[in-house]
Amino acid sequence: MRPNKPDSYTTVHSPDPTSVGFVTPQTARFDTPIKLRSGAVLDRYELVYETYGQLNADKNNAVLICHALSGNHHVAGFHSEHDKRPGWWDTMIGPGKPIDTNRFFVIGLNNLGGCHGSTGPSSLNPATGQPYGAHFPLVTVDDWVETQARLADQLGIQQFAAVVGGSLGGMQALQWSITYPERIRHALVIAAAPKLTAQNIAFNDVARQAILTDPDFHGGDYYAHEVVPKRGLRLARMLGHITYLSDDVMGSKFGRMLRAGAFQYGYDVEFEIESYLRYQGDKFAESFDANTYLLMTKALDYFDPTHHHNEGSLAQALQSVKAGFLIVSFTTDWRFAPERSREIVKALLDNERDVTYAEITSSHGHDAFLMVDPYYHDLVRAYMQRIDLGDVA
Amino acid sequence: MRPNKPDSYTTVHSPDPTSVGFVTPQTARFDTPIKLRSGAVLDRYELVYETYGQLNADKNNAVLICHALSGNHHVAGFHSEHDKRPGWWDTMIGPGKPIDTNRFFVIGLNNLGGCHGSTGPSSLNPATGQPYGAHFPLVTVDDWVETQARLADQLGIQQFAAVVGGSLGGMQALQWSITYPERIRHALVIAAAPKLTAQNIAFNDVARQAILTDPDFHGGDYYAHEVVPKRGLRLARMLGHITYLSDDVMGSKFGRMLRAGAFQYGYDVEFEIESYLRYQGDKFAESFDANTYLLMTKALDYFDPTHHHNEGSLAQALQSVKAGFLIVSFTTDWRFAPERSREIVKALLDNERDVTYAEITSSHGHDAFLMVDPYYHDLVRAYMQRIDLGDVA
Repeated sequence: MRPNKPDSYTTVHSPDPTSVGFVTPQTARFDTPIKLRSGAVLDRYELVYETYGQLNADKNNAVLICHALSGNHHVAGFHSEHDKRPGWWDTMIGPGKPIDTNRFFVIGLNNLGGCHGSTGPSSLNPATGQPYGAHFPLVTVDDWVETQARLADQLGIQQFAAVVGGSLGGMQALQWSITYPERIRHALVIAAAPKLTAQNIAFNDVARQAILTDPDFHGGDYYAHEVVPKRGLRLARMLGHITYLSDDVMGSKFGRMLRAGAFQYGYDVEFEIESYLRYQGDKFAESFDANTYLLMTKALDYFDPTHHHNEGSLAQALQSVKAGFLIVSFTTDWRFAPERSREIVKALLDNERDVTYAEITSSHGHDAFLMVDPYYHDLVRAYMQRIDLGDVA
Repeated sequence: MRPNKPDSYTTVHSPDPTSVGFVTPQTARFDTPIKLRSGAVLDRYELVYETYGQLNADKNNAVLICHALSGNHHVAGFHSEHDKRPGWWDTMIGPGKPIDTNRFFVIGLNNLGGCHGSTGPSSLNPATGQPYGAHFPLVTVDDWVETQARLADQLGIQQFAAVVGGSLGGMQALQWSITYPERIRHALVIAAAPKLTAQNIAFNDVARQAILTDPDFHGGDYYAHEVVPKRGLRLARMLGHITYLSDDVMGSKFGRMLRAGAFQYGYDVEFEIESYLRYQGDKFAESFDANTYLLMTKALDYFDPTHHHNEGSLAQALQSVKAGFLIVSFTTDWRFAPERSREIVKALLDNERDVTYAEITSSHGHDAFLMVDPYYHDLVRAYMQRIDLGDVA
């Protein structure tokens, strides 16, 4: 595939001047085999991506947005006028927004193993003509960073002005700074952790077991059976939501509010929080691929920059990084608590790297990274504005 | 049934002088119908219980132990020499132990709705000759307290020296002080909360949905299908265990320790924490009744002493209590955090009641209430020793 030229994209602006407007996903095809950390080899694969803004002449204004567990390439704007909602981080990215598409050329992609267009378990395996299913290899954050670098190659981007992500996306930004210190000038690592704790892994494993033991899972080859392990995926998502929200926000939003005003003494919805969780679970189970969910949780579990350094310290693992860092955490995030971000800050300071750290007061728990908070957004804006593209006097 | 006389029990002491030794469960039968809070009526039911120590002549030394979600009547001692483990709170109860059976007559029972001998969903419904299954009514903490009072009546106990419980057991002790202020001199409320938060309910609902959506659940009537919803019960228990342990203790016990020393890139056990949780889940799913599990989690959700006071304050709900209180919480308990215990303390102080409160430093999370900690045990011992039976100079 020839490198995509920035001027090959048509961005039709909607009336909202701070929106990137209508966007069309692109597909990048890769025919050079990739050897994954698991040892498995994929001979060819595709990555679907979107871009917002223009790559400048110096090609030094590219920003990569890495997505979290259930995210995808559709980061900002609308695919059509029928879309009810814009991309998942539309509040952060657009003309004049914190990641300003008037200055930056922003790329969102669906990671390898995803279920929104990039090659993943639900894609057809060219060797069999059937969906990969259980035969799709597990992937790691390192693998994603490698595929993202290959995408950058195709787009003619030698170095990113910044790699940005929240949660699992933040882990990718951190890994970028380690794997390709010369190809990333800044890393924005938001609501992340340097590796999962036993408790984090435990939650992931319960979610996985819910899917793996669903009779409709069929060992991962449910596509052939024309069923979907919805029960398991629904439970996984319900559980996930508990860890994304803070106890505080659950209390203030739902508390002990009853659906019917009085106890019903049965197993239907009694409390509004049950209604909310079941709805979220049902919605997700209709739209997300269970194998991708499993794979994403494993990538989270495996992430550990110290793993390849003989379980050395994080400071040791970060010795080679050159990027400047913005690390952001949220006070009520108990999935990846501020302490976890501070571990990264400490390891960067130990290496005398440039690091800005902010702990944002928020009641929204882990989800806060996706939400609008003036202080948080102004912080990201200020950090991004400071990035030198040779365009500021 | 005639009142059991204390001298009708034979307690054969094992060589361990601090053990209550071998114990034999008793069954109390109740033929007076009970109208439950749900409106359902049970015409007759049985409660299985055990006792340790001797009821004194004044009948003022009885202590009721209330169990938590998965507990039962077998609180201390052994049923036979083949038992691998003693009752679930054997470390707390026995001759010379914190709840000293040389002084106190201690009663443990299996709550109504249980699956260890008391009438519950797996019991035969006399109306049909089949297990109750889905037809067993939901029960509340208030219902349990009422049945426990009826058991006390049968045993000739007008007033308990103390009602003691941890977690859901502590809620029963608290409810005792409200429902029967004249029948309880002391309440020991350990690792409990005055009512569940939205987050607590959310975890319970995910656990319930795992069971309810298990194809082997058959709407609660799985007994007739000769299957058990093991997948769902296993998930429920795995999830439960995460909330019983602290992040700290999971970290120090398991951390990121790998089963095979290296990543396997598959869905079998990779991390030791996964092995632990799956083992706990499997073991529980083999032995516990799913309908009882559902019912116990609902009793937790429903518990709210303020509910019958027009959602008034806890202080208002506790206006009528007369008992003295020992309230205990554990620093790393995030299921029912110390803050939750302090709400009870505050409401008691608002009513100028006698309350001793201790926040025990422990790394063991919610489970700490079942574990041996010298400070915790000495505290309970001291509190119990202070209880006046007319036997101390």
